[in-house]
Amino acid sequence: MTGRFAEKYGPWAFVAGASTGIGAALSHEAARRGLNVLMMARGAARLEEAARSVRQAHGVEVATLAADLAHPDVAHRVREAAAGLEVGLFVYNAAVAPAGRFLDVDLDKHLLSVAVNCATPVTLCHLLAPAMVDRGRGGIALVSSNGGIAGAVNFSTYNAGKAFEWILAETLWAELGESGVDVTAILVGATASPNYNAFKETLDPELCGRRDTDDALDRARARLMNPNPPRQVAAALYDQLGSGPVCWADPDDEFVSRKCLALPRDEAVAVWRGVQETSTRVPERQAL
Amino acid sequence: MTGRFAEKYGPWAFVAGASTGIGAALSHEAARRGLNVLMMARGAARLEEAARSVRQAHGVEVATLAADLAHPDVAHRVREAAAGLEVGLFVYNAAVAPAGRFLDVDLDKHLLSVAVNCATPVTLCHLLAPAMVDRGRGGIALVSSNGGIAGAVNFSTYNAGKAFEWILAETLWAELGESGVDVTAILVGATASPNYNAFKETLDPELCGRRDTDDALDRARARLMNPNPPRQVAAALYDQLGSGPVCWADPDDEFVSRKCLALPRDEAVAVWRGVQETSTRVPERQAL
Repeated sequence: MTGRFAEKYGPWAFVAGASTGIGAALSHEAARRGLNVLMMARGAARLEEAARSVRQAHGVEVATLAADLAHPDVAHRVREAAAGLEVGLFVYNAAVAPAGRFLDVDLDKHLLSVAVNCATPVTLCHLLAPAMVDRGRGGIALVSSNGGIAGAVNFSTYNAGKAFEWILAETLWAELGESGVDVTAILVGATASPNYNAFKETLDPELCGRRDTDDALDRARARLMNPNPPRQVAAALYDQLGSGPVCWADPDDEFVSRKCLALPRDEAVAVWRGVQETSTRVPERQAL
Repeated sequence: MTGRFAEKYGPWAFVAGASTGIGAALSHEAARRGLNVLMMARGAARLEEAARSVRQAHGVEVATLAADLAHPDVAHRVREAAAGLEVGLFVYNAAVAPAGRFLDVDLDKHLLSVAVNCATPVTLCHLLAPAMVDRGRGGIALVSSNGGIAGAVNFSTYNAGKAFEWILAETLWAELGESGVDVTAILVGATASPNYNAFKETLDPELCGRRDTDDALDRARARLMNPNPPRQVAAALYDQLGSGPVCWADPDDEFVSRKCLALPRDEAVAVWRGVQETSTRVPERQAL
């Protein structure tokens, strides 16, 4: 199993947005499955610490690139860092989630969100996919979100950007699949990063306690109290790469997603608005 | 009816992407309902001709702005052109649809697509909505596409950008609706522009002849042979502004959209792939 993963997607994984949370877990899990890992994130100190941890835990080669994913020269930086490395797996986990009402957030932050959630994944897929197509094997995974399946409140350009990644991944799944390159988007739900755990303290346990009903809002709220460990998200993504254009890390996320997609759009928006208003404060950095 | 539309959304409409097809129809229809129109498009000659036509047909004031919607100074140009005009209706109809396999299309064209389909609508909504919120009335309409509800082949960043607009509009519908500003995205299907009519000649009438079955692909293909007149799309959009976050110009488009959203994602992609492969040539400019 591990051998087959490395044969198909090795010898190098490139993880963009790699230093914490899901990105760090994606780096560890790729290494655990036998791949060397090129880890990219903006802050050098945290990145080097995460890289050391992956190197020590799995004994693989780990390279790092400290660079800004929103910068126009991102393709140049990645091309340089990946020169000589055979990247068989590209995972895009970076995201910018400006929190607050659309008009209360500075335009610059929204445009940063468009750069990181839309332009840069396009740029990096365009840079890294051709060699995979030439080899007739490889994998591309975009970390999207259940937040991409509907607008709501407070995460305008984040939700829209996650929709962009979801639909982009579907096209790449159809086009690159013909060349033996697997593509998928994972629609993540609540995940237990340190930030999330702080946010979780502000949730109303009454509202979030119910579950196992057939109601999308009940089910989505219950998920808020039961965030997945990042390593579960990473394992689910790699297990499902090659199985379809979209995947989920949690059966409840899939249930909520499918249910909302089948609803009239005003009702789908109401579900996500309900989820985002379960906490009384506007979460500073939490996007679902 | 006409009076109420102008009271709610007047006195000025601003239509971005206004010189041909749906954009010209949206300008005419806004004028027919009693609004003055600021029309924006890149090419000055065609824009002035379209503006003359609106002015002559409806006797309203028409202003023009010939400028590139992908340019970083777009907000500055629009602010200048709209200075002193009370814009109560903002319609974003511009789109860039790079046709061809993702890797065969130049990266620059994909990034142009991200600029026009994602960044610029964000910029212009951020510029124009605050005055509407202050007045407690107004309307914003984003012209999206049924192509935004799934990836397929040949229109990677277009479909993804149309998904971005769809989900962005849903958030703005929820947030700005509280201030009396109506927002909607229209998911357009086949529309009889001159370009489309040329493309239609290449369709296989056998494949596109069936209809009224319960199958999403049959129904979507049948729509290809029966494109809506642009004026029908414009009227449908204005009639439904204020009724929900998303609307359609044609009951078959709504049927296909809802049906595909309820399908497993690989099947939804297969439907749109089937639609886009109904013609043997890769359409140069037609995105559905």
